[in-house]
Amino acid sequence: MTGPVIVSCKRIREVVKLDESAITAVEQAFAKLANGNVIMPPVHQILVDDYHGQTCVKSAYVTGDPYFVSKAASTFHDNGRLGLPKTSGLMLVFDAQTGFVDTILLDDGYLTAMRTAAAGAVSAKWLSRPDADSAAIIGAGKQARLQLEALTLVRDIRFARLWSPTYDNARLAADELSKQLGFTVEAAASPQEAVRGAAIIVTTTPARSPVIMDEWVAQGTHITAMGSDAPGKQELDPALIKRAAPYVCDSREQCRTLGEWHAAIRAGVVSESLEAVEIGEIVAGSRPLARAQDAITVCDLTGLGVQDAEIALLARARA
Amino acid sequence: MTGPVIVSCKRIREVVKLDESAITAVEQAFAKLANGNVIMPPVHQILVDDYHGQTCVKSAYVTGDPYFVSKAASTFHDNGRLGLPKTSGLMLVFDAQTGFVDTILLDDGYLTAMRTAAAGAVSAKWLSRPDADSAAIIGAGKQARLQLEALTLVRDIRFARLWSPTYDNARLAADELSKQLGFTVEAAASPQEAVRGAAIIVTTTPARSPVIMDEWVAQGTHITAMGSDAPGKQELDPALIKRAAPYVCDSREQCRTLGEWHAAIRAGVVSESLEAVEIGEIVAGSRPLARAQDAITVCDLTGLGVQDAEIALLARARA
Repeated sequence: MTGPVIVSCKRIREVVKLDESAITAVEQAFAKLANGNVIMPPVHQILVDDYHGQTCVKSAYVTGDPYFVSKAASTFHDNGRLGLPKTSGLMLVFDAQTGFVDTILLDDGYLTAMRTAAAGAVSAKWLSRPDADSAAIIGAGKQARLQLEALTLVRDIRFARLWSPTYDNARLAADELSKQLGFTVEAAASPQEAVRGAAIIVTTTPARSPVIMDEWVAQGTHITAMGSDAPGKQELDPALIKRAAPYVCDSREQCRTLGEWHAAIRAGVVSESLEAVEIGEIVAGSRPLARAQDAITVCDLTGLGVQDAEIALLARARA
Repeated sequence: MTGPVIVSCKRIREVVKLDESAITAVEQAFAKLANGNVIMPPVHQILVDDYHGQTCVKSAYVTGDPYFVSKAASTFHDNGRLGLPKTSGLMLVFDAQTGFVDTILLDDGYLTAMRTAAAGAVSAKWLSRPDADSAAIIGAGKQARLQLEALTLVRDIRFARLWSPTYDNARLAADELSKQLGFTVEAAASPQEAVRGAAIIVTTTPARSPVIMDEWVAQGTHITAMGSDAPGKQELDPALIKRAAPYVCDSREQCRTLGEWHAAIRAGVVSESLEAVEIGEIVAGSRPLARAQDAITVCDLTGLGVQDAEIALLARARA
């Protein structure tokens, strides 16, 4: 019996990029979930509180696929002090017929970053105004940078502002992104300044109280909220969830317990019976989007095992 | 950044055996759980029903340990037709300070088999009569054989009977075990015949209704029930759970939902408030066992992530 194929992070970075095929993989992940043929158990969380860390296992099996995937992803907040990235992890690809591990993708969190950024692109592609040409990015970390890059793949972005609690981080990220993307990215002094006039807002922070207030957001704006992936996290004023037309999420089940929706329920602003559309229902066409030009749309992304599964299978096929 | 160390199954089999150190590792796992310093999230199950399989992720972090462990273990019932073992899997050892994967143990389910067999030895060591010299094994698979071998490490077993639904399987296993262990192991024609006069009964089947009836079991017997590791599984007459003095389990929380206790609750024979002792409480000394010579003791083992963690750390240290 031969053991699993082991694929290095270097190889994975060579074969999977933030590009059209990554976006398509994540789009398909959402559509498959909407079509109801995905087995996706609840997230398995190992809380390592004494080191301010946690490791989450997310898994998904698209019934009929030859493989299923389980991912272990760690976020350890003190790693910076050790000169290490906060995030790490790997993905296991199983043979669906035998349960044997077929491939180990030593992606070190890279594929998670890719599928998360690609989800931001999917969100903007389907929900933002086609003429959206400006963006506000809240956060200055790796994912914040990827989110802006992802937007450029689906919209003709000409200008962006970026805000981070530490102004120097925002300036550094803005300078680097200006060079990388070939348009002006400015550091903003406040979240309010960042979002002024932006057609698309992307929030990527681990905030636990609203960073973006309802009254700052003009009609016609699309918001992608990426940060809320655990109970207690929140980036948006709950009034924005109520105001959104429509409020879209990656998974109703998960967003009722982890996402901005959960925070808005807790705040008493909306209920569990809020009419929420899943992004996959829009992609799959079962609930086509009728977006008014001056509507505010919100996409609440908490991160799903099926996204990991689809990006892992892309990596496996190419590695 | 260097990647994880990858340890082959061959190497793991060389360094971890069913012996005193494996028993001690599992004993310590139970004791640590009883002492309350183990973080062990609920089992994460990926049900692959169209191939009659499931993959379970079990994880545990003993607070203060330098590592924590997550295991993926598959059981696919049709693998025999493909000439493959039903069970497979691997274990991930994480650095507790950084969340990085430190070691991948490609054990192919071997360490799970070892920790499960060792748990049977721990059960018999603490709960059976010291003079127990005969055993009945229900089941003829790999784990059934290991369970009898495990008993010989803690009791002076002189005679055993083995029953399996397929008599030929029982005879084959009995013949092989007789040679391997150096005492007579007979194939029994029925479970009732198997348990007659046995001081220790070990059940290792995937049964979904009682295999061992209350009236067959003589006073003074110890029973280890290993098979019930999922809702719906059951090997013992619920009356035995009520009759046990004491009823012992690996985890009250888990056995209320997966084990023989769960089956007995469902049957209406005992309640959720049954006085159950955890094997770790006996090992750790917080609830010392006062066993009457003629009592029936039952140990209900559903399998815990902390067992995987301790056996994985033994393998890591030696590999």
